[in-house]
Amino acid sequence: MSDLGEFDIIARYFTRAPRRAVLGVGDDCALLAPLPAGQQLAVSCDMLVEGRHFLSTVAPERLGHKTLAVNLSDLAACGAEPIAFTLALAMPRVDESFLEGFARGMFALADEQRIELVGGDTTAGPLNICITVFGAVPAGQALLRSGARADDDVWVSGTLGDARLALEVFRGSVSLTAEAFEAVRTRMELPAPRVALGLALRGIASSAIDVSDGLVGDLGHVMARSGVGATIDADALPRSAALASLPRAVQLECTLAGGDDYELLFTAPAARRRAVSAAAGRAGVAATRIGHIEAAAGLRLVDGNGAPLRQRFAGFDHFRAEP
Amino acid sequence: MSDLGEFDIIARYFTRAPRRAVLGVGDDCALLAPLPAGQQLAVSCDMLVEGRHFLSTVAPERLGHKTLAVNLSDLAACGAEPIAFTLALAMPRVDESFLEGFARGMFALADEQRIELVGGDTTAGPLNICITVFGAVPAGQALLRSGARADDDVWVSGTLGDARLALEVFRGSVSLTAEAFEAVRTRMELPAPRVALGLALRGIASSAIDVSDGLVGDLGHVMARSGVGATIDADALPRSAALASLPRAVQLECTLAGGDDYELLFTAPAARRRAVSAAAGRAGVAATRIGHIEAAAGLRLVDGNGAPLRQRFAGFDHFRAEP
Repeated sequence: MSDLGEFDIIARYFTRAPRRAVLGVGDDCALLAPLPAGQQLAVSCDMLVEGRHFLSTVAPERLGHKTLAVNLSDLAACGAEPIAFTLALAMPRVDESFLEGFARGMFALADEQRIELVGGDTTAGPLNICITVFGAVPAGQALLRSGARADDDVWVSGTLGDARLALEVFRGSVSLTAEAFEAVRTRMELPAPRVALGLALRGIASSAIDVSDGLVGDLGHVMARSGVGATIDADALPRSAALASLPRAVQLECTLAGGDDYELLFTAPAARRRAVSAAAGRAGVAATRIGHIEAAAGLRLVDGNGAPLRQRFAGFDHFRAEP
Repeated sequence: MSDLGEFDIIARYFTRAPRRAVLGVGDDCALLAPLPAGQQLAVSCDMLVEGRHFLSTVAPERLGHKTLAVNLSDLAACGAEPIAFTLALAMPRVDESFLEGFARGMFALADEQRIELVGGDTTAGPLNICITVFGAVPAGQALLRSGARADDDVWVSGTLGDARLALEVFRGSVSLTAEAFEAVRTRMELPAPRVALGLALRGIASSAIDVSDGLVGDLGHVMARSGVGATIDADALPRSAALASLPRAVQLECTLAGGDDYELLFTAPAARRRAVSAAAGRAGVAATRIGHIEAAAGLRLVDGNGAPLRQRFAGFDHFRAEP
């Protein structure tokens, strides 16, 4: 506990001298300099609620990282270069140990991505964290959900399913060795936003989205906005060694419906396969081809032999899922 | 209750065709067109929590208005022209009657101010609403908290104290006629952001802030950032007929420490009095001169005869106040 007030908290934990912004934290508004000519402003906003988006057991430093990371992941999915962000934070009471850790984790990622906190709000209330991020993207070059075309390849970065696997270990439905659990827990708590990959895919990918609600759900958004369908080889989905050691049903559930992966799911013409691989190489992350886009609506999940899967999988929906 | 999911809610209540934005609700990011040459982007963010920033009795339509209004008030205090906003909303369950009313109130104010919702987030959780607003202001013309200078006049728009008075009626500590209560309740629930006044004061006011935490607290922010003090005539503070009919102690508490007024508190050189009055006239709102800035630090509250007030007043602090 602490006797710090609202303005002390902002001064102590959330105020740093602005570098790129014209005016940072501490006035009614922040002021951002105009973007370079020909650039558009990309904006995204994510709200994280305790018990929904993170467990109460998460270390504050990791929560600070994750809150910013999931927002940066949206910029990555658009191919936008991050610039700045605002933070609104409601918390039940002033907990300086929480604030110190949260700010440390958040600013470490902000420094790594060379972006800055320019404003926000702090209030008492049930724990809730809302970040709005700003990025820049050359006009006409943003990666959109609506650009997938029939015969495009479908790709995904990194591996899928570890965050969901960690959640299942917390729930007690799966057990792992301590070492494997630590690895998947890190994937859940310290997601790496694929900003460099998003930038490298500009001019190459035809559409992109980040995997936050699970592959099936997020690919569904791309198919709906693009007016297409897809066939996905469930056995081709990239997964960690820890996940690959578990029963196939667990692997399918985690990779197809897991969510919280923050990998990029994107499409590109088959003629650009080498360009995709080169872009992934430059960004230092794997990219795996997992299927293709088709004119016929709907998602067809098949196994490595092309036979349809019989199971059903759904994307995460905050108002339809149990916490 | 409802069986609507997260994406149905966004589609049904929060998706309208973009007018100015390049890309609106429905992708990973919104895309905003570059600002006109020489303009900076003003950004502000406010989070509203049930029981802290609004009572559970408020009509959803009024809550939708107020949530956007308090954010627009920050743009007004900077002299920025509103452009767009994002909305993040956590709510315990899908209540379509709430959503319909909330969206109606929010969009009515958005239409009046000719701005649009470009993105956001919807999730399950304790009721929490976070809006981030974007505006444009010519470089170097933003009204800042830091610009007050010794001998400047101190001004405030409209009247102060009605929102606090309404809260005291809800708390049972003051009673009013039904008609007077309705008037002050409307001030609390439907604040009018002083956007037009903020724009009209560019080039005239030396500093500005909006009155959200109470006059004493908000003037304190201006004094701290400007490195000055002030003398304020408490009897000169503009107040409604309803408030003026109550005991002087209630009037002082409500006007000096009330908060939730969303009037503009600003300073201007004494030589610009006619310009201030003309700007207020153009904006269709009263502006009242309530004191002056002094080089000596600290706030001196005096009565109409210049005698010091003996009472103490403090600005609102979310971590130091009872809900």
